[in-house]
Amino acid sequence: MKYIGPRVMYHRLLSRRFVNQFSRSCYQFGHEENQESGAPRARKYTKMLLGASVGTLLAYKFYDYRNNAVVLAESPEMKMGNVGVAKADLPVYTLHEVSEHSTKEKRIWVTYKEGVYDITDFVTEHPGGDQILLAAGSSVEPFWLLYAVHNNPHVLQILETLRIGNVSKEDSQQLVADMSDPYSTDPQRHAALKPASVKPFNAETPPFLLVEQFITPNELFYVRNHLPVPQVDPETYELEVEVEGRKKCLVLTLDEIKKLPRHTITATIMCAGNRRSEMVKVKPVKGLNWGAAAVGTATWTGVRLRDVLIKLGVDEDDKKLKHVQFEGLDFDPTGKTYGASVPLWKAMSKRGDVILAYEMNGEAIPRDHGFPIRVIVPGVVGARNVKWLGRIVVSENESDSHWQQNDYKGFSPSTDWDTVDFTKSPAIQELPVISAICKPSEGEKVKVEDGHIVVKGYAWSGGGQKIARVDVTADGGSTWFVANLDHQDSAEPPQHWSWTLWSARIPIPSGTKQVELWAKAVDSCYNTQPETFKNIWNLRGVLSNAYHRIKIKLV
Amino acid sequence: MKYIGPRVMYHRLLSRRFVNQFSRSCYQFGHEENQESGAPRARKYTKMLLGASVGTLLAYKFYDYRNNAVVLAESPEMKMGNVGVAKADLPVYTLHEVSEHSTKEKRIWVTYKEGVYDITDFVTEHPGGDQILLAAGSSVEPFWLLYAVHNNPHVLQILETLRIGNVSKEDSQQLVADMSDPYSTDPQRHAALKPASVKPFNAETPPFLLVEQFITPNELFYVRNHLPVPQVDPETYELEVEVEGRKKCLVLTLDEIKKLPRHTITATIMCAGNRRSEMVKVKPVKGLNWGAAAVGTATWTGVRLRDVLIKLGVDEDDKKLKHVQFEGLDFDPTGKTYGASVPLWKAMSKRGDVILAYEMNGEAIPRDHGFPIRVIVPGVVGARNVKWLGRIVVSENESDSHWQQNDYKGFSPSTDWDTVDFTKSPAIQELPVISAICKPSEGEKVKVEDGHIVVKGYAWSGGGQKIARVDVTADGGSTWFVANLDHQDSAEPPQHWSWTLWSARIPIPSGTKQVELWAKAVDSCYNTQPETFKNIWNLRGVLSNAYHRIKIKLV
Repeated sequence: MKYIGPRVMYHRLLSRRFVNQFSRSCYQFGHEENQESGAPRARKYTKMLLGASVGTLLAYKFYDYRNNAVVLAESPEMKMGNVGVAKADLPVYTLHEVSEHSTKEKRIWVTYKEGVYDITDFVTEHPGGDQILLAAGSSVEPFWLLYAVHNNPHVLQILETLRIGNVSKEDSQQLVADMSDPYSTDPQRHAALKPASVKPFNAETPPFLLVEQFITPNELFYVRNHLPVPQVDPETYELEVEVEGRKKCLVLTLDEIKKLPRHTITATIMCAGNRRSEMVKVKPVKGLNWGAAAVGTATWTGVRLRDVLIKLGVDEDDKKLKHVQFEGLDFDPTGKTYGASVPLWKAMSKRGDVILAYEMNGEAIPRDHGFPIRVIVPGVVGARNVKWLGRIVVSENESDSHWQQNDYKGFSPSTDWDTVDFTKSPAIQELPVISAICKPSEGEKVKVEDGHIVVKGYAWSGGGQKIARVDVTADGGSTWFVANLDHQDSAEPPQHWSWTLWSARIPIPSGTKQVELWAKAVDSCYNTQPETFKNIWNLRGVLSNAYHRIKIKLV
Repeated sequence: MKYIGPRVMYHRLLSRRFVNQFSRSCYQFGHEENQESGAPRARKYTKMLLGASVGTLLAYKFYDYRNNAVVLAESPEMKMGNVGVAKADLPVYTLHEVSEHSTKEKRIWVTYKEGVYDITDFVTEHPGGDQILLAAGSSVEPFWLLYAVHNNPHVLQILETLRIGNVSKEDSQQLVADMSDPYSTDPQRHAALKPASVKPFNAETPPFLLVEQFITPNELFYVRNHLPVPQVDPETYELEVEVEGRKKCLVLTLDEIKKLPRHTITATIMCAGNRRSEMVKVKPVKGLNWGAAAVGTATWTGVRLRDVLIKLGVDEDDKKLKHVQFEGLDFDPTGKTYGASVPLWKAMSKRGDVILAYEMNGEAIPRDHGFPIRVIVPGVVGARNVKWLGRIVVSENESDSHWQQNDYKGFSPSTDWDTVDFTKSPAIQELPVISAICKPSEGEKVKVEDGHIVVKGYAWSGGGQKIARVDVTADGGSTWFVANLDHQDSAEPPQHWSWTLWSARIPIPSGTKQVELWAKAVDSCYNTQPETFKNIWNLRGVLSNAYHRIKIKLV
């Protein structure tokens, strides 16, 4: 830990901003409003990256399922030694070759650690076989977590019997990058993540997987990037913390941060644009076409921002200082970094639980989620949970970044791009109450069993509020059924940061061929969701928290 | 200030509970669910009290408009000495006689301090003369505040020219009470308060008056009582503060409380049943038929509860203590006091602003509002803002009172009295976002001027959230107009405790004879109101925050 003066700070900042060289010509801004016009370009990139993006073994190299491995190793019946380890007598395949085997016709291959497996025959007999197809041509590891393989370790032994080869060593290294593309050094992603845009990479989890487990596995956690993912060397990484107008600045290395008192929270992070694709049906908006899964829940470990700011001499009762600005290490062609801010009270409050996180679900934070440090501001929109955190400035003012000032704000349904005045609306911070049905999905054929169907979903509210109730109707609100809250953290509001997973068993009159399901949640302030998108429509398509309505067929 | 042991505490409590003698036979419980069946009885009481309830000069004796008098006295042009002072040469009238003069036919009399005035001729010429008729047969004083008479002190001089007599001295004393009625010692109320029930007294402000001024005058502030108003002698009043299971108890006299550091906040208080009369149209509920004005805003001065609890040795990080229970000095025939509780974090937080208030709008808190001490828990439902505070207990548990456990909770629209389980819903604390149109009123004939009409109302959200926007539509949501936020406190969330007064100028196509207006508010968490009552209906009719919709005629 060291203190430096303002001149040194300025030079550090300059040099950091230009450390990565890239061609401006093919650079694509991360502002969502450019995504629409950039759609053809995005499609081109999608094709370019298709071969590379399906494998996640490289990602595994970064994340390492230590917890899972420990559980498996503890199991006495389990001889884990050989599963997924490179075997000299087997052929070697590239990840590209693996990715070409994703249908029954071409055989279905998957990877686990360094092993390649042909699961075509197994899938045919495997119960719930449809879901494992999401791993086709890719890694099965995140699904192991979701489907709780540690409760049935023999599954891994069965998998090993399907072994056909090894993953090539070259694929364990970063693929040779096209250095003219600033996105060429982005990490590999799991094939199950459904991209809303590729450059910058933005992708969500398949909704039905979200509700399988309270904690979302890292590889399946939605990704929302505004700019290329920076490559940060943890050995040389330094975080700068300063108070605007004061000469002293605190500089912390990663090791120094890790030596401060650890604090772990379980928090849901959600994108302001989650469920935008439903609002779009009223009238077009500018923004990525997110479904209902731009949201996820993880445990985050780090140091309280409060502790760091107190070390710097910040007084929580200081009337002049009102905001904490965050700068990422990701930056646009002009050298401007991603930035956002949150109110100082949130950062300084004992009950605010804002942390500089270096672990996500017990592992080093993956590159896509902010390696080595992401500020986690629980209860607050994802956009303020700045990744690849490089600088913190305590200030009288909000961040002047595009994303704080001219994006991520709500407006009246009658405000359009000709009349909008971004200074008139507050920056989104704590998010309103929301819910979504994740299972079944729109248009799905659902089997009525014993006169009932089962509906599953999530519900969450910002600001540390807890979900008090979820209501589901299949008859347009004439009869509401109270859902069972299957998984809910015991933390009390206003420190309840994580979502609630729910399910409802809905009676279906015999002979019914089709129903429309609606879900709505109520939080601990008894705020509830608005009914329709028509009356909350806004030009950026944010805050899309109207009732979730899906039509399903019954068989 | 003194500390006492548990045995003494117990005897104190017993003696206090039975200090007021009353007949059980005519006692009416304050639980709202008894109000419906008690309607005929309530009507009888209404008649009995009619003569007495119209005058508020007695109330004035308790409240004393010190601030107003100071402003007037400071005005150099104003000779205030004679206005409203008893004059030996004038006849003396009882308040009952005054109350009989409330129509032009019988002449319109009003009182101001000790003066009686005949304003019949003045009203005919007075601009906005309709509104002053609310004071007919009663006191004009609260209206002076609303219409900002201190900006035009000559009004008082004009009033004095209309002087016809003095108020009788007897009426300055408490009316002789029927001691068999526990409500006989309730204070007099202003005639403009529209009662939802008389025993206990529950009444709201005329909505159009609410939006005249940011601060609601004490006499016009809605009253929500559950039991008879206790008569508390400030000289002998003592507040007990204790931690459950600990031997030491703190006892504070009113003087001792007033010597602690003063803290003033501006906060809106709202009844959980505000706007219930709209929800009732979907399906009947149990509860008082409140309109849209069971809400008001005042400045409250007192001592921070936090300071008192720290004095008692309460640690805000104590993991075992979770709630602060409040007991009123009002009690039912079994000796059970009114009670409620709030979470400890709210009471202990520096940002919680919970105060033991002894002043309301700069005056001693009126009897109807909790004299001598009311706990003000800003951002939290009125029911937890316990009046006539007698005892505070820091505990592991919530209050076990009826109102905390089996009332003031929300339920699904399909939950009825056969299926309700009060243990399944959380006690209402922080309230959801709400708004209402106060001007014009339902069915009113409104003049279209310059192709527009002006709509005025309030909006508020609990939990210290600020109103970010109010939208108004006259065409069922096809076009929303953003209202102007005319009066809003500068406090930032989560310490923004007061409402926002708004107005919108809505264009009306020529020839339109009738429109339905809708209003909805959005708060700083971007929570917004639900659209209809159908989907938020609940058996107690609480949390009635759907869009406010009124039909008006256009002329």
